[in-house]
Amino acid sequence: MTTERQFIRELQSKFPNRAPVLIGIGDDGAVLDVSADSQQVVVTDLLLDGVHFDLQVTSPFLAGRKAVAVNLSDLAAMGCRPTAAFVSIAIPRHGIGMSQNFLSELYRGIQQMTDEFQFALAGGDTNSWNGPFAINVCLTGVPFSERPFLRSAAEVGDAIFVTGPLGGSLLHGRHLSFMPRLQISRWLARTVAVHAMMDISDGLSLDLHRMMEASGTGAEIMASAIPIHTDVPTLDSNERRLAAALSDGEDFELLFTVGESDASILTAAADDAKISIYKIGQVRNEVDIDLIDADGNRSKMQDSGWQHTV
Amino acid sequence: MTTERQFIRELQSKFPNRAPVLIGIGDDGAVLDVSADSQQVVVTDLLLDGVHFDLQVTSPFLAGRKAVAVNLSDLAAMGCRPTAAFVSIAIPRHGIGMSQNFLSELYRGIQQMTDEFQFALAGGDTNSWNGPFAINVCLTGVPFSERPFLRSAAEVGDAIFVTGPLGGSLLHGRHLSFMPRLQISRWLARTVAVHAMMDISDGLSLDLHRMMEASGTGAEIMASAIPIHTDVPTLDSNERRLAAALSDGEDFELLFTVGESDASILTAAADDAKISIYKIGQVRNEVDIDLIDADGNRSKMQDSGWQHTV
Repeated sequence: MTTERQFIRELQSKFPNRAPVLIGIGDDGAVLDVSADSQQVVVTDLLLDGVHFDLQVTSPFLAGRKAVAVNLSDLAAMGCRPTAAFVSIAIPRHGIGMSQNFLSELYRGIQQMTDEFQFALAGGDTNSWNGPFAINVCLTGVPFSERPFLRSAAEVGDAIFVTGPLGGSLLHGRHLSFMPRLQISRWLARTVAVHAMMDISDGLSLDLHRMMEASGTGAEIMASAIPIHTDVPTLDSNERRLAAALSDGEDFELLFTVGESDASILTAAADDAKISIYKIGQVRNEVDIDLIDADGNRSKMQDSGWQHTV
Repeated sequence: MTTERQFIRELQSKFPNRAPVLIGIGDDGAVLDVSADSQQVVVTDLLLDGVHFDLQVTSPFLAGRKAVAVNLSDLAAMGCRPTAAFVSIAIPRHGIGMSQNFLSELYRGIQQMTDEFQFALAGGDTNSWNGPFAINVCLTGVPFSERPFLRSAAEVGDAIFVTGPLGGSLLHGRHLSFMPRLQISRWLARTVAVHAMMDISDGLSLDLHRMMEASGTGAEIMASAIPIHTDVPTLDSNERRLAAALSDGEDFELLFTVGESDASILTAAADDAKISIYKIGQVRNEVDIDLIDADGNRSKMQDSGWQHTV
């Protein structure tokens, strides 16, 4: 078995970036130089029945919505607004695929996102087969400010923030109905010099490790500062609740860093704008990530989130 | 059952084009305005085991190669060179997916295309599941000349050309090993004012109907001028051989039109450049497509190619 991380490294070594690609495999999306003074971001995600949703219990509306929303979350993570969507679907020849209603509902879910964020469904591909339902979405986007944000741009001393409470997303179906954080991404892009940003799709612990690894840095995280979602059972032990916030995944909140001097400015601006952001720690030189409890005890944070094997 | 054509019309009515999308659903690819003076084309195709190839007999190398090549054919059809590829794959948890060699060979096939045409693999998504193998490829491209070519730009009086012999592609595996017509697309873009262009993926008869419908025109085709591929069995009757050239599909040759006065210039230039192109007929005002045999007898050409039902 190869981990996703190893697999991505192998691809990076085989496939060189060639102009106009500035940033290729390894971030939330790719960055292309499309003219002398403008950049474009392209993101893509493939969602599969039985993996990312279960059509036995999930409506086609929510499946279509989620397929677009997870890609919008990737664009938000790079500080971009969407410009166009490309949707490919594989429809089972028997069962759900035969229902005209299935497709109408699927595209109604897609349309909720294209209407909400005002971009076009500009192309795609449709096939039927003997396999289960699959949907691939590819989105193009352009930066809210001059440049897209990368996960590799964290700097030693940066304050680390998340945009919302974490954990329990799969338990309560939040992974199907979340609102991608485009609004706060735009606000951040216009308010402060964001250093690194990515979305939390596989759990804070794994995604923070990815950001720190990409940036060549480490971090100290205050356990008590991590916001825990109300979807995490309140009767669980504190330890289990923290583990849920660190590892459940599919939160689709943003994880970002800003310079230390910008952190307090940002916190004040967020208060004024009634926007919730949570400072959870600090970037440091040592490459490990320490988790510090309320008593000041340190432990290594494990990269225990959801990592696909291929 | 809804035909692909009806399905596309429904999507067009639900999803309006929004800036920067100039051309959306319905052509070989979408056209985006990416800056004041440059356009980008985006194409996508989803290929499925058991539909577009059969991994029981097709090597993963050829499957990966084909997944990129069919998209390159769409770019060639729009007069564009590729700039970046985004590849999403769903890998069966059991069977082929477990073999490391499968992925290496798949990406070696993809790499043959990215190296041949010098563009980047810039992103993608990888998941394993309990379904069969599926691969979605999305490519970005930029025009060889100022603007992309559309299937809707045929004009009454235009000469109609194809870039190579047709038929028998599936019979002899040409659909797995064809070379996308990027070179001739570039040559055409630089040699003549191409009016309409598209690639022949579902058979000349169906694809020509699509081009004429999109252009609001019809055509007269000389049956004896249609080049028949050597992959079509020579012992078949002339009628069956012609039907194969019209309907077999997966030829991935280009179908294009140029103004009548440009047709002879183009034919002479092609002779000089030792490039094979075949003039097969003419665009006309009446919306039907007539097929004219060697004796001058006319019959209506059926849109009998491969049309997916969804």
